[in-house]
Amino acid sequence: MTDSSAKKISLTGIKPTGSLHLGNYLGAIKPGVEMINSGDYDCFYFIADYHSLITVHDPKVLKEYSYEVAASWLALGLDPSKATLYRQSDIPEILELSWILNCFTVKGLMNRAHAYKAAVQENNEHERDPDHGVNMGLYSYPILMAADILFLKSNMVPVGADQLQHIEIARDIAQVFNHHYGEVFTLPEGVVHKEQAIVPGLDGRKMSKSYGNTIPLFLTEKKLKKTINKIVTDSTPPEEPKDPNDSLIFDIYKLFANADEIKELDAWYRKGIGWGEAKAELFKVVNRQLEAPREIYNELMSDKKKIDLILEEGAQKVRPRAQDFLNQVKQTVGIN
Amino acid sequence: MTDSSAKKISLTGIKPTGSLHLGNYLGAIKPGVEMINSGDYDCFYFIADYHSLITVHDPKVLKEYSYEVAASWLALGLDPSKATLYRQSDIPEILELSWILNCFTVKGLMNRAHAYKAAVQENNEHERDPDHGVNMGLYSYPILMAADILFLKSNMVPVGADQLQHIEIARDIAQVFNHHYGEVFTLPEGVVHKEQAIVPGLDGRKMSKSYGNTIPLFLTEKKLKKTINKIVTDSTPPEEPKDPNDSLIFDIYKLFANADEIKELDAWYRKGIGWGEAKAELFKVVNRQLEAPREIYNELMSDKKKIDLILEEGAQKVRPRAQDFLNQVKQTVGIN
Repeated sequence: MTDSSAKKISLTGIKPTGSLHLGNYLGAIKPGVEMINSGDYDCFYFIADYHSLITVHDPKVLKEYSYEVAASWLALGLDPSKATLYRQSDIPEILELSWILNCFTVKGLMNRAHAYKAAVQENNEHERDPDHGVNMGLYSYPILMAADILFLKSNMVPVGADQLQHIEIARDIAQVFNHHYGEVFTLPEGVVHKEQAIVPGLDGRKMSKSYGNTIPLFLTEKKLKKTINKIVTDSTPPEEPKDPNDSLIFDIYKLFANADEIKELDAWYRKGIGWGEAKAELFKVVNRQLEAPREIYNELMSDKKKIDLILEEGAQKVRPRAQDFLNQVKQTVGIN
Repeated sequence: MTDSSAKKISLTGIKPTGSLHLGNYLGAIKPGVEMINSGDYDCFYFIADYHSLITVHDPKVLKEYSYEVAASWLALGLDPSKATLYRQSDIPEILELSWILNCFTVKGLMNRAHAYKAAVQENNEHERDPDHGVNMGLYSYPILMAADILFLKSNMVPVGADQLQHIEIARDIAQVFNHHYGEVFTLPEGVVHKEQAIVPGLDGRKMSKSYGNTIPLFLTEKKLKKTINKIVTDSTPPEEPKDPNDSLIFDIYKLFANADEIKELDAWYRKGIGWGEAKAELFKVVNRQLEAPREIYNELMSDKKKIDLILEEGAQKVRPRAQDFLNQVKQTVGIN
C-alpha cells in the first residue's frame, strides 16, 4: 500500500437523521471545514447512512436526510477538491470488516456502550424489559463505527466528548486483533475540540434534535426569523436594563457576531433592550452567515445529480483503499 | 429477477471448524447428496467460513478447514454440475445484508438463541460474568445466518433439530421487515430429516466434535482401524453370548452394513463374539464405504486448485443473485 500523501488521516462521520442545525454548524461543520482549509490533515467525511438505518425506517426520509447532510457540508464550505466526501454504503467493505471485528469484540464492551446503557436505563425507569425497543443495530453500532474508522487507517477522529467512548472501543477492538495477529490496524485518536462551542437551543438546554429545541440551518429567512422569535425569554419590560451575561439570545449572538457588534449589543442590553429587538439583532447576524450557503444548499437540493457526482468521486477515491485493506485483513485471518 | 429454474431452492451451510466425521457424513452429507441426486430441489451448499471466524483464530487452520469441508463434500458425491457449492466469504453482499437485518432484529431474539444461552448457563455454573468469553460474533451469528438464508430466497433449509431455532429467527426477522416494507423476503422452512441417523460416538454419546468422541472421515486405513478400536466396550469374555441391541459397535455397524451382513453379525453376537472381532467387522464395512471417497479426497487436498476452481464457479453463479437482491433491499430501505 502506498499513500499518496504523508499527512495524517482525519475522519469524521455524519449520521443523517434529520436536518442540521446551528449546533451542528458551530460544533462540527465549521471546525471541520477549518481543519480542511488548514491543510494539516488528509480529511475524510462520510455520510453514515447505514447508521441511520438503525432508527430511520422510512426510505424516502432516509434518502432525503442523506442528501441534506451532503448538501449542508458542501454549502458550508467543504471543498471536495481538498477533502473526500463519501457515503458509507458505497463502501461495502466496511460491512464485511464489521463482521470480522464482531468476532474479536467481547460482548461486555457493548453492554457498557453509552447509547445502549441509556436505553436500558430508560426501560428500567419505565419498568419494562431492559432490552425493550433495542434492535441489534443500536446494540452493535460501536462495532460498525470501529470498522468505519479502522478500514481507512484513520489517525484522528474529531468528536464530541460524548463520542469519545466509541473511539476507545475502536482502539480496544484493534488492540485485541493486533495483539493476536500483529500490527494490522492503526490505532485512532479521538480528539475533542476544546474550543468547540456548546450551542444553546431555544429553551436554553444544549441544542439537540432530541430536545426539539433546534434552529435548523437552512430555513427560509422568514422561517428563520420565526424560529429565532421562539427563543424563551422572561417578561422583563423593554425599557429595563438587562444583564447580557444572563441572556440566551446574547449567548447565541456572541457565536455569530464580531467583537464590535458584541460590544454594541452589550451596551444596548445594559441600557434597556426589548426582547423583540434583541431577537431581530440575533437574526441579522445569523442570517448574514447563512445567506450565501443557503443559496448553494437550495441549488444542490433542487438538482441532486451534483451531489451524486461528488459522492461517486469520493467513493472512487476511498474504495480502492478499502479493498486493499480488507484483502489484507482477510488474508490475516485466513478468509481468502 | 428471473430464475432459470422453477424448482424450489434448498440451502445448506457447513461450518468449517474441524475435520468431518462419520456423524456429519450420515447426518448431513449423505442425505444432502441424495437430495441433489433426487433432482427435486435447486440445491445450494456453502462453506460458512465467516461463521468459523467466531471461534477459529488461526489463519492456517481456518483455511485448511475450509478446504477440508469442500473436499469432503466433493469426495462424497456432491456433483458441482448438479448443485452449487460456494464459499460464504466470496459473497460480500451477505455481510451487507446482515447489517441491514441487524436494524430490524430486536435484541431479545438474540438473548434467547441456544448457543448464547448455553454460554451464559455455563458461565453461571462457574459463577463467572454471564457474558464471559462471549464475543459479538457468537452473540449475533443468528443474524448472519438469516442473511445467508434470505439473500438466496431459500425455500427450504435442511437442518438438525438443534438448528431449527435459527430458521425461526430468520423467519421472524424477515416477517418484521416484510410487514414494514412489503414482501421483500421469502420465508424459509426448516426441515429436519426424520430418518436422519443419530450416530453414536466412541463413548456412546452422540458423535460430536465437542465431545472429542468422533471417527473422522478421512483417516488412513490404519488410523481408521485404530480409532474404531477405541470404541468403549465392557469386559465380557469373547466366548460369552452378547446382545447386539445393547452394543455400540453394532449400532454403528447397522448404519454401514447391508441387511445380510447385519443378520450375520447379529447371529455371531448371540453365539459369542470377541470385541476385537466385532470391531474388525465394523472397520470392514466403514472402510468399504470410505475407500473410494478417500482417494478423491486426498487427491483434492493435495492439489487445491481444483477446489478453488469449483468454489469460484459457485461464486460466479451465486453473486449476481446476491447483487440483484441486495440492490432491491437497499432501494427498499432508502440506501442507494
